[in-house]
Amino acid sequence: MSILNDDRLLPAETETRRIARRLYAEICTLPILSPHGHTNAEWFATDQPFPNPAQLFIVPDHYIFRMLYSQGIPLSSLGIGPESSADPRKVWRLFAEHYYLFRGTPTRIWLDYAFETLFGLETRLGATNADEYYDSISEHLQRAEFRPRALLARFRIEVLATTDSPLDSLEHHKTLQSLGLQTTVLPTFRPDPVVDPDFSGFQQSVERLGHATREDTATWSGYLTALRKTRERFKALGGTATDHGHPTPATADLNPSAAATLFEKILARKSSPEDHELFRAQMLTEMAAMSLDDGLVMQIHPGSFRNHNTRLYERFGRDIGADIPMATDYVNNLRPLLQRFGNETALTIILFTLDESTYSRELAPLAGHYPCLKLGPAWWFHDSPEGMMRFREQTTETAGFYNTVGFNDDTRAFLSIPARHDVARRVDCAFLARLVAGHRLDEDEAVEVARDLAYNLVRRTYHL
Amino acid sequence: MSILNDDRLLPAETETRRIARRLYAEICTLPILSPHGHTNAEWFATDQPFPNPAQLFIVPDHYIFRMLYSQGIPLSSLGIGPESSADPRKVWRLFAEHYYLFRGTPTRIWLDYAFETLFGLETRLGATNADEYYDSISEHLQRAEFRPRALLARFRIEVLATTDSPLDSLEHHKTLQSLGLQTTVLPTFRPDPVVDPDFSGFQQSVERLGHATREDTATWSGYLTALRKTRERFKALGGTATDHGHPTPATADLNPSAAATLFEKILARKSSPEDHELFRAQMLTEMAAMSLDDGLVMQIHPGSFRNHNTRLYERFGRDIGADIPMATDYVNNLRPLLQRFGNETALTIILFTLDESTYSRELAPLAGHYPCLKLGPAWWFHDSPEGMMRFREQTTETAGFYNTVGFNDDTRAFLSIPARHDVARRVDCAFLARLVAGHRLDEDEAVEVARDLAYNLVRRTYHL
Amino acid sequence: MSILNDDRLLPAETETRRIARRLYAEICTLPILSPHGHTNAEWFATDQPFPNPAQLFIVPDHYIFRMLYSQGIPLSSLGIGPESSADPRKVWRLFAEHYYLFRGTPTRIWLDYAFETLFGLETRLGATNADEYYDSISEHLQRAEFRPRALLARFRIEVLATTDSPLDSLEHHKTLQSLGLQTTVLPTFRPDPVVDPDFSGFQQSVERLGHATREDTATWSGYLTALRKTRERFKALGGTATDHGHPTPATADLNPSAAATLFEKILARKSSPEDHELFRAQMLTEMAAMSLDDGLVMQIHPGSFRNHNTRLYERFGRDIGADIPMATDYVNNLRPLLQRFGNETALTIILFTLDESTYSRELAPLAGHYPCLKLGPAWWFHDSPEGMMRFREQTTETAGFYNTVGFNDDTRAFLSIPARHDVARRVDCAFLARLVAGHRLDEDEAVEVARDLAYNLVRRTYHL
Repeated sequence: MSILNDDRLLPAETETRRIARRLYAEICTLPILSPHGHTNAEWFATDQPFPNPAQLFIVPDHYIFRMLYSQGIPLSSLGIGPESSADPRKVWRLFAEHYYLFRGTPTRIWLDYAFETLFGLETRLGATNADEYYDSISEHLQRAEFRPRALLARFRIEVLATTDSPLDSLEHHKTLQSLGLQTTVLPTFRPDPVVDPDFSGFQQSVERLGHATREDTATWSGYLTALRKTRERFKALGGTATDHGHPTPATADLNPSAAATLFEKILARKSSPEDHELFRAQMLTEMAAMSLDDGLVMQIHPGSFRNHNTRLYERFGRDIGADIPMATDYVNNLRPLLQRFGNETALTIILFTLDESTYSRELAPLAGHYPCLKLGPAWWFHDSPEGMMRFREQTTETAGFYNTVGFNDDTRAFLSIPARHDVARRVDCAFLARLVAGHRLDEDEAVEVARDLAYNLVRRTYHL
Repeated sequence: MSILNDDRLLPAETETRRIARRLYAEICTLPILSPHGHTNAEWFATDQPFPNPAQLFIVPDHYIFRMLYSQGIPLSSLGIGPESSADPRKVWRLFAEHYYLFRGTPTRIWLDYAFETLFGLETRLGATNADEYYDSISEHLQRAEFRPRALLARFRIEVLATTDSPLDSLEHHKTLQSLGLQTTVLPTFRPDPVVDPDFSGFQQSVERLGHATREDTATWSGYLTALRKTRERFKALGGTATDHGHPTPATADLNPSAAATLFEKILARKSSPEDHELFRAQMLTEMAAMSLDDGLVMQIHPGSFRNHNTRLYERFGRDIGADIPMATDYVNNLRPLLQRFGNETALTIILFTLDESTYSRELAPLAGHYPCLKLGPAWWFHDSPEGMMRFREQTTETAGFYNTVGFNDDTRAFLSIPARHDVARRVDCAFLARLVAGHRLDEDEAVEVARDLAYNLVRRTYHL
Repeated sequence: MSILNDDRLLPAETETRRIARRLYAEICTLPILSPHGHTNAEWFATDQPFPNPAQLFIVPDHYIFRMLYSQGIPLSSLGIGPESSADPRKVWRLFAEHYYLFRGTPTRIWLDYAFETLFGLETRLGATNADEYYDSISEHLQRAEFRPRALLARFRIEVLATTDSPLDSLEHHKTLQSLGLQTTVLPTFRPDPVVDPDFSGFQQSVERLGHATREDTATWSGYLTALRKTRERFKALGGTATDHGHPTPATADLNPSAAATLFEKILARKSSPEDHELFRAQMLTEMAAMSLDDGLVMQIHPGSFRNHNTRLYERFGRDIGADIPMATDYVNNLRPLLQRFGNETALTIILFTLDESTYSRELAPLAGHYPCLKLGPAWWFHDSPEGMMRFREQTTETAGFYNTVGFNDDTRAFLSIPARHDVARRVDCAFLARLVAGHRLDEDEAVEVARDLAYNLVRRTYHL
């Protein structure tokens, strides 16, 4: 018996479900555009088999190990961290025993989808069939059709964007470009290591940026030029966007000499936390200015208190599930940038949030007014059926559908990509079906919107 | 084929829909009470035909042009602003081509309703039938039965409140009073220009207030007397309420000499932004004191960052869609006023919000305790089916229905008034039907509540 | 005709309702575990009849009298306050006349349930049958089977926790322990009067704590020892948990000498409001340290602005319905405590909130990461069908079900306990049925989760 029901996530009410089915049928075979994610270009450039189920599903997926950790399971027993020498099969068994913890979470949906569609596993994972799963997945991973590039094609991914540091050589992207795959794999310019003074090793990174670009990044103007050049390098490899993961969406509009002074103070390590916040704020505005010049779409992902759990950070480093959202103010914070560039129709800034109270209060009203602003989809913790529905319910009334940009999977869990897009498409169809059932939208319009959300808006907004 | 389905906005589930239909049937023909809005008394006093479809539907409606502007359409091409000389037919075509942007928004619902019920237009607006719409509406507007007063009667509006500056002569209201229309058109006392020091021309306005009332508004006591007299002038023309659009709901309770000193400092232009906030705060408390004397119902509409887009403000002035909601604190801000007047049963203060996170956290608990407080309906950006449903879902559990005050259309878009009331009635019936279907309320009670929300509570709370 | 329908609160859609019914049938007869509430141990120790309907239902229930007060009914006319000599029958009539105010509120659900299941009253309460209700309830209350202990058994309450001051002798708990009832009645250690310097009589209470424990509570170390000893006293009578009702969830981690200095300053009454906040913050961390030693589960109930209405507080004291929720920050506030103890698997801290915007933004991400954190159920104003559903919808995606702890009735309204648990069970079944109907969860899993939420998780988390 299959785990995946054809009607999953569609509305329960009969007539609304029928409408949703028809809408979904129109878009379910559209190719995938993934304009924002965290897969590794190296996987596709080298095309090596994925090592084993634990390395594939658990170790890179903070959604999974944060839940297990919250229930008292040490990270080291999951194969995570420098000290861990956990046997992957034992890691898998531990995970399988605790699969019940994911009931009601999106992780469960993504995994069930991957297990069944990729590996034909149709009995719910649990302690008793952990080894069966492990063996079956392991065996599949050795097959040619489960190599990364084969999966790209199988998943019908048309465009896949990675996220990359300005210090990255992008060598794997070069390789990929030369291969001429059917899937376009693109880099995204994520300058946090060289624009956020709180980023570990900031000063050295700025220096390395200077070496890489042959610019004097000890000066403000050399630093800006180095960033501009690096953006060009990303563009040359197909990049169409930048991404900014600041703690807040603070922006500033300092005059050049004040900005230069601030920059020098930070390089000299004489700066305060407030200076760092101001510098990040100024850099968002600088990035917007550069985007207006070079056409890169700007993505702002604010509001996460990174590495909230210091002890874990000291042992395991970044991205181990201890990033916690904070209340976020967009209205005051974005204003300096918007005062300068808000009315530019040639600029695209996509806003994301971890604070859902801002959907109806700040983000939809901002995006429903400023020509440069668009709303990114429900993000991170809110990338769930409930979270996606809240996003539509709380933004559509004010910003409509056409100030949103379609779906981002935003994942390092490569095998979850089709499942995530499928969830987004189903939830959007469910929302649209409700509008049709409530006689607020004709079905032909709903079909058009569903297609736009799944494909056209992504291509258009991200300049793909 | 009609665009408007009889069941629009009612629940999809069969049994719940049947209940909702029965409830709606009980209230759909009740007359309209519009105790808070922004129509212009001049329209009804002079009873001139509305000029053309663009002037009627687009130019005065910031919901419409903010959406179009957000998608890169210049305001001047929509006929907005001093420099615009756009041909109204071209404005209309531009709007019609972009009508798809309003999918899923309340604007779409309001417009479809007006197009069909008033002009018999039953084919969805789009690029191809833009001229047909334009011609048909234009032709109708010339008919006697489409004059403003005829529409008042046709809409079955029993009471219509406008919002007026203390500096307004209210001459049109006087005319209307002398005409003895079936619809009572009332002024609402909105003193922002003379109580908010950040309002453009504040000092001159205070001086003009002095002239108009023959009081020395250069003194604190003269100023208060002038306000009191003006409130009496509004009352004499039927006014029953005041309205206050402050950026925050801050209140203060200064002693008279401190208040006088603050007032003088502001008049002398020696004040800081903090002084202005304190003065507004003090004035809310002064207004409450006057309301306790003269019985005017007080409405507080806080939480909007007005004129967020400075460049647009400089070119086009206020109210061009660039007002953005902010996080709002009622619990601490209202306390000074509530410490003085919170337990007064003879005082009515109606609270509105643009920050929906305050519904369940602050507003319902406050209104569910203090005798003077009532909750206004879902406001502005949240005046949508989803927003209205959130309002009921998040306030009823704590404040019940009887600490709310029925619906406000709050609009300058005169032709949308019946549609807006219809949406509110349908959503309330949908919410009540869910309570009945969930066996939480008997149907006879739901009918009573539906009638109270649509009519009785409005009449009672606003003293109509 | 019965007021209570078997399907009340279950989903309206036919198939989803069928699933929900099956789930509910599996759990509706489970015994009640009430690990957090405010009933009075004296009732059960002395087993006196409840005096009359007004004293039983109205006077102790702030949900009821705050609503009546908000509509202008004086508290004294409800039998509340030192000056009140209201006739209980008149109080009851006043309540019955205003029963319509509770339409749509959880109070209505709780009362209808108690009226029908306990007293066989199946006609909706109103002005016309007020006396009939009063007489019937009065008559029942004199019967042996309506004595407090008989009701404990009838309600099938397995465990009932009260909330008690460290200064309480717990004599009634001692009596109850000696009686060997089927229901275990436990004390909960609520140290606010001796750890919150803003609590009325703080210094005297600390002194009394010293006398009671024979420790020198004028010193920091003596004070801590006194608290430790008192916790042991609570444990000896079956206590398994502590509870903390601070205005904010601020925590601190001062070194012992700084903490001692702060304590002395406060005892000497030389402290500022900021000192008090810092002391409360430090005490949460001290309590966590003690919990790690003695195993008591820690509950944090922050975010209420207590006694917002000063005039009422001065006349009637605490808990008269004038506590108003405030915006609450958990991410920054809890960090000092979490830095020290966040990774302890032997510690359990249950977080509650009155700020629902924190569910998805802060609480679910925190509880879905830190092993020591769990989420308490929807609390106080949010203990409604809508509020419970929002809790599940906004926390499950990130924290799952197994970082939550089942239901708390949190009530002093003893007769409402079965109704409240019934509502929680129905809403959880409704939520689970939606997951099953959406093909996200198998029905056998949903049954297991329903049982865990109703019983197993409570027993396990609270160490019952």
